[in-house]
Amino acid sequence: MKHFERLFEPRAIAVVGVSDDPVRPGSQTVDALLRNRYAGRIYPVNPKYPTYEGMKCYPSVAAIAGDVDVAVIGVPARGVIGVMEDCAQKRVPFVVVPSGGFRESGAEGAALQDRMVAIAREAGMRIVGPNCLGLANIHSDVYAGFGSITRPPALAKGSVSLVTQSGGFGYSIALACAQAGIGFRNVIATGNEADIDTVEFLEALLDDPGTSVIVAYIEGLRNGRALLEVGRRALAAGKPLLVWKGGVTNEGAKAAATHTANLTGSYDFYRALFRQGGIVEIRELHEAVDYIKAFAGRKFPMGRRVAVMGGSGGSAIVFADAAEQSGLTFSRFAAETRRRLSEVIPAIGSLQNPVDFTAGYIAGGNAPKFATAVRSVLDDAHVDALCINLATTSVPACKVGADVLQRIAAETPKPVVVFLATPVPEAVALLEASGITVVPSPVRAARVIAMLAAYREARERRAAESGSAMPAGRPFDGVPLTAFGTSMPEEEAKAALERIGIAVSRDVLVRSADEVPFEQLSVPLVVKIASPDIPHKTEVGGVKLHIRTRAELAAAIDEVLLNARTLAPQARIDGVIVSEMLTGGFELIAGAVNDVVFGPVVVVGAGGIYAETFSDTACRLAPFDTETARDMLDELRCRPVLDAARGRPALDVAAVAHALAALSRFAWANRETVAEIDINPLFALPAGAVAADALIVGR
Amino acid sequence: MKHFERLFEPRAIAVVGVSDDPVRPGSQTVDALLRNRYAGRIYPVNPKYPTYEGMKCYPSVAAIAGDVDVAVIGVPARGVIGVMEDCAQKRVPFVVVPSGGFRESGAEGAALQDRMVAIAREAGMRIVGPNCLGLANIHSDVYAGFGSITRPPALAKGSVSLVTQSGGFGYSIALACAQAGIGFRNVIATGNEADIDTVEFLEALLDDPGTSVIVAYIEGLRNGRALLEVGRRALAAGKPLLVWKGGVTNEGAKAAATHTANLTGSYDFYRALFRQGGIVEIRELHEAVDYIKAFAGRKFPMGRRVAVMGGSGGSAIVFADAAEQSGLTFSRFAAETRRRLSEVIPAIGSLQNPVDFTAGYIAGGNAPKFATAVRSVLDDAHVDALCINLATTSVPACKVGADVLQRIAAETPKPVVVFLATPVPEAVALLEASGITVVPSPVRAARVIAMLAAYREARERRAAESGSAMPAGRPFDGVPLTAFGTSMPEEEAKAALERIGIAVSRDVLVRSADEVPFEQLSVPLVVKIASPDIPHKTEVGGVKLHIRTRAELAAAIDEVLLNARTLAPQARIDGVIVSEMLTGGFELIAGAVNDVVFGPVVVVGAGGIYAETFSDTACRLAPFDTETARDMLDELRCRPVLDAARGRPALDVAAVAHALAALSRFAWANRETVAEIDINPLFALPAGAVAADALIVGR
Repeated sequence: MKHFERLFEPRAIAVVGVSDDPVRPGSQTVDALLRNRYAGRIYPVNPKYPTYEGMKCYPSVAAIAGDVDVAVIGVPARGVIGVMEDCAQKRVPFVVVPSGGFRESGAEGAALQDRMVAIAREAGMRIVGPNCLGLANIHSDVYAGFGSITRPPALAKGSVSLVTQSGGFGYSIALACAQAGIGFRNVIATGNEADIDTVEFLEALLDDPGTSVIVAYIEGLRNGRALLEVGRRALAAGKPLLVWKGGVTNEGAKAAATHTANLTGSYDFYRALFRQGGIVEIRELHEAVDYIKAFAGRKFPMGRRVAVMGGSGGSAIVFADAAEQSGLTFSRFAAETRRRLSEVIPAIGSLQNPVDFTAGYIAGGNAPKFATAVRSVLDDAHVDALCINLATTSVPACKVGADVLQRIAAETPKPVVVFLATPVPEAVALLEASGITVVPSPVRAARVIAMLAAYREARERRAAESGSAMPAGRPFDGVPLTAFGTSMPEEEAKAALERIGIAVSRDVLVRSADEVPFEQLSVPLVVKIASPDIPHKTEVGGVKLHIRTRAELAAAIDEVLLNARTLAPQARIDGVIVSEMLTGGFELIAGAVNDVVFGPVVVVGAGGIYAETFSDTACRLAPFDTETARDMLDELRCRPVLDAARGRPALDVAAVAHALAALSRFAWANRETVAEIDINPLFALPAGAVAADALIVGR
Repeated sequence: MKHFERLFEPRAIAVVGVSDDPVRPGSQTVDALLRNRYAGRIYPVNPKYPTYEGMKCYPSVAAIAGDVDVAVIGVPARGVIGVMEDCAQKRVPFVVVPSGGFRESGAEGAALQDRMVAIAREAGMRIVGPNCLGLANIHSDVYAGFGSITRPPALAKGSVSLVTQSGGFGYSIALACAQAGIGFRNVIATGNEADIDTVEFLEALLDDPGTSVIVAYIEGLRNGRALLEVGRRALAAGKPLLVWKGGVTNEGAKAAATHTANLTGSYDFYRALFRQGGIVEIRELHEAVDYIKAFAGRKFPMGRRVAVMGGSGGSAIVFADAAEQSGLTFSRFAAETRRRLSEVIPAIGSLQNPVDFTAGYIAGGNAPKFATAVRSVLDDAHVDALCINLATTSVPACKVGADVLQRIAAETPKPVVVFLATPVPEAVALLEASGITVVPSPVRAARVIAMLAAYREARERRAAESGSAMPAGRPFDGVPLTAFGTSMPEEEAKAALERIGIAVSRDVLVRSADEVPFEQLSVPLVVKIASPDIPHKTEVGGVKLHIRTRAELAAAIDEVLLNARTLAPQARIDGVIVSEMLTGGFELIAGAVNDVVFGPVVVVGAGGIYAETFSDTACRLAPFDTETARDMLDELRCRPVLDAARGRPALDVAAVAHALAALSRFAWANRETVAEIDINPLFALPAGAVAADALIVGR
């Protein structure tokens, strides 16, 4: 925050471009500052007016006698450069540029933006925008922008800060929160990010003691990895970071040389980053509302076992559906809990989870019983979090319930979430003040608990990860990649993998069938074309499987060579690779992509013919440890195949995780030279994991 | 409705069990009737009181002089039978029984419930409940129940009717709608459904001219197929039926003999039914709200191409993300549209879809331009529906926008949905009155349009289906199933499939290798154990693939026989089946399950080792036509594998659809004798679809 102190807490703001026209940005800024009683100095600037709204109006920024911390430049694009030069001269530390007509509008605007940045860099001045709604510090009544951010009613004061790459949609998030009673600290719309970008603002907010939760709307980042670092810092600081990623659908195909690169889009990388950085993803406005409220309670479930109590069986069922779909499990109560419940719950109710205390149970005279019932469940060591369905209780019953619950909330470290359909503002206020999250649907109650559990897990994962030393990846030490043109031959690529501890299949490179030491190999065999110019061997008929006899082998070698010469006549053919075919395992695909925004990212997925059909993949930003690799494998839908079942042996998950972590270190260490790595297939075997084919593409 | 007229529009209601205690059900009923000024006669019944709330109080139902249309029996379970007998004597056509303590409470309660039903059947009396909140007809001020249904404030009058198997959660749905300004007609909580069940109420509401939309919360049905018929009737009547299915997660494994039966749960059957019956599934409270509002507009997109306009790029991106995820596509505008837009949209805006008319565009003076812009897009033949992001417009701008849009809504047959984050009740009222759906998030806007498109498609599918005659399935005419014990031998099952037009693989049943006409078969071959007692051949090592030589064949036959004798010593072994191995196709799994609630349901899915891993299945209630079979295949994630790609030929989708439709007719025609059918694998080939193995299990 320190370096942005003058921006967030300016002692004086110059507003260039004030006008009699109240819809002009400058006019809106001054109007908002006056209306909200900003305590610092306001310097209106417009050579046309001697005074503005009863204040002295200056002909230029240079003409202002005192220091200026922030200048809002509310003039059209073509006039901005002159004002910037003025501000640079006066050593104004921060300018906010609302105007459009810069990089977003074409080549001319881009040149203007470059010029703007050059002026700022030289003067040590920082820019917010251009093409943005600007920012507001609600606590200090600072409004340095225009449009919805400055419009009445002002946001309430609170500890949530918002950074958004879309002023319009970002402010919709703020409004949704405001309508639910959530207050704000800083609200920043970053626009074109010519200078200060989203990540730098997030860093500043992490340092701001008045900000307890940060929400961001992001469309794109120049440096994805920086967001990972911000996420990790936020996690360590206990300041939840909620991010809505806009633009998650894939438009147009991505040109990529490897299969792994084809299997993922950049949204997958964002999601991997969110998981690695403990960032809470939001996909709906009400999620922002619910999650911010839930974090305000500052209680996190120690596990994923939930209990639910209420007077409506249906609400409990709907909660259970959503809980299971959110990865929560249902607590099985201890005998003692059931005994205690039996003393206070009517006979026609249920003492099991979900607890049915029957409709009409919560009433004035029953308050002590209700309290005992809730305490019994919260005391159970098998319960990590509790949902209470107040649903459609009457107004008096709802108040009784809220009163009991707020007292219990003060005693328990476990999070309590209440589903309430009846609007009873008094009860809601009481519950929320005691740290209980109130939501208007049982589905949202389940999602809130799942989110809190995931957040806690992320903190634990991060703590474990920080504690373990990550072995450094070793740079590639074989023949330089550049020696092979676009891609490295299979045998070289496999040698490279072997050096970093990834097992590879037993291969022989031959030019004809007589060179094959048939007796030393065990059938079935595989024959593959060996050529640095044929990355996708199957597409030219360059692979033959299930070979059992010498005769079949000779025929396969001839066929593969003929196919390659026919379908890839320009390719340099080094011969054919004969390998023992790996059976009894499961075919995965693994690889690394060196992304322009995220750097090296490792991808693993189900292999074989289903790889592209089911897009069953998981990815993580490299480098990472084996624990992260295991977490990644757990994300795959095909993950159960790796476990023992129906007499089938378990496959070596540890070996696969080890290979992925090694691959991640290698991809990271060689990020300057390696563009893509493709291990297809990577066989998970009962003992070990073996790369049966490999491709390394240079940058 | 006719047969329920006296229930929904009673001229006189007897309320048994009124009491000085205002929380007793009877007291609540009378209180609600008086408070809402019910126009019919009210007969309080309780021998203890001469009068009740100023009305004459009767000692029994028999003592009432006039006719009684509905009796609300608000006494504890043990007293209900006596009152029922009284009501039967008096020929009361309908009783509502709020009390619990019946089937839900154990054997004694179940006996009580049976007795109750017997009395009603004999007298021709109908029962609502027991163990229910009862019902209300909001239009006629009828309140025949207790709890939330009778509690003030009363629901507003409207044309939505609600049937719910959970009073508590169902009323939460009603409350969420009420808070959004939606009015109701009939609200019915069905409780134990001892007599009248959800489906019968839905049928009655379909006949009710005052009901335009029906919402139901369902946990379980005795007869799933009846709901399919209700859905089809509702679709034909143009009365949308929205259903929330509670209890969708699978608890415990289902005991099933076939693979197909293992691949699905009853929720899959419900979803298939929803699709076949044009029932709109809801999974969140706000979906009920949004969809009911959207249906009120009575406009449906002719296709799935949407356009979006607004002043915030971010909102458009978020809409686009949700639109793509909901199966919508983005319209490409005609040149004429872009020309028209260019005349009214500022240069820094965007004339493409999403249209960016820039922030601050909608203002009083700009209203004609805004109108032209919206009309240009709606006039484009490539646009099926339009979303307008008013997002965070100022209050005056919002009103201007609403005024323009409500006029345009009167001219266009295309649905318009507005996203508005700013709360401007006046504008919302204006928009909604003109049939425009207003939602508080762009995600919800996309979902609403997708739902309307899906509803229209369902109506079209149904119309096409009703027009085409469904060929009757022919009953099984081979050896009676009962002759084979639990399951039919593979060769008989295949013969049965062949008779209904499903191609099967070329097989020879032999006892030893010398019996195989090796020269007449083309390799590779498959060897499988033939035994009616071994339904899962692979589990006993009963299958060998990729056999190419006579020697391999002999070894395979010996091995398979030995495995079977070792691992299934009790099984009757008929020999081994030798078949040509099918290659160059895609392995599906198909089958039929005869479900206790839904009857015969056909399932198709990705086969092979991934079948259970990815649970990539689709199902439909049998019987159905080939169009439905194609629709079913389109649901599979593996569907693209059936299309030509990368030099791979297209597979015969028509043949697969034909086989599924034939299977569905067979399963339906033989529902009395067949429990399950399993075709695993069903090969989709470049020409044709072939069943390579088949199992038929008798009931």
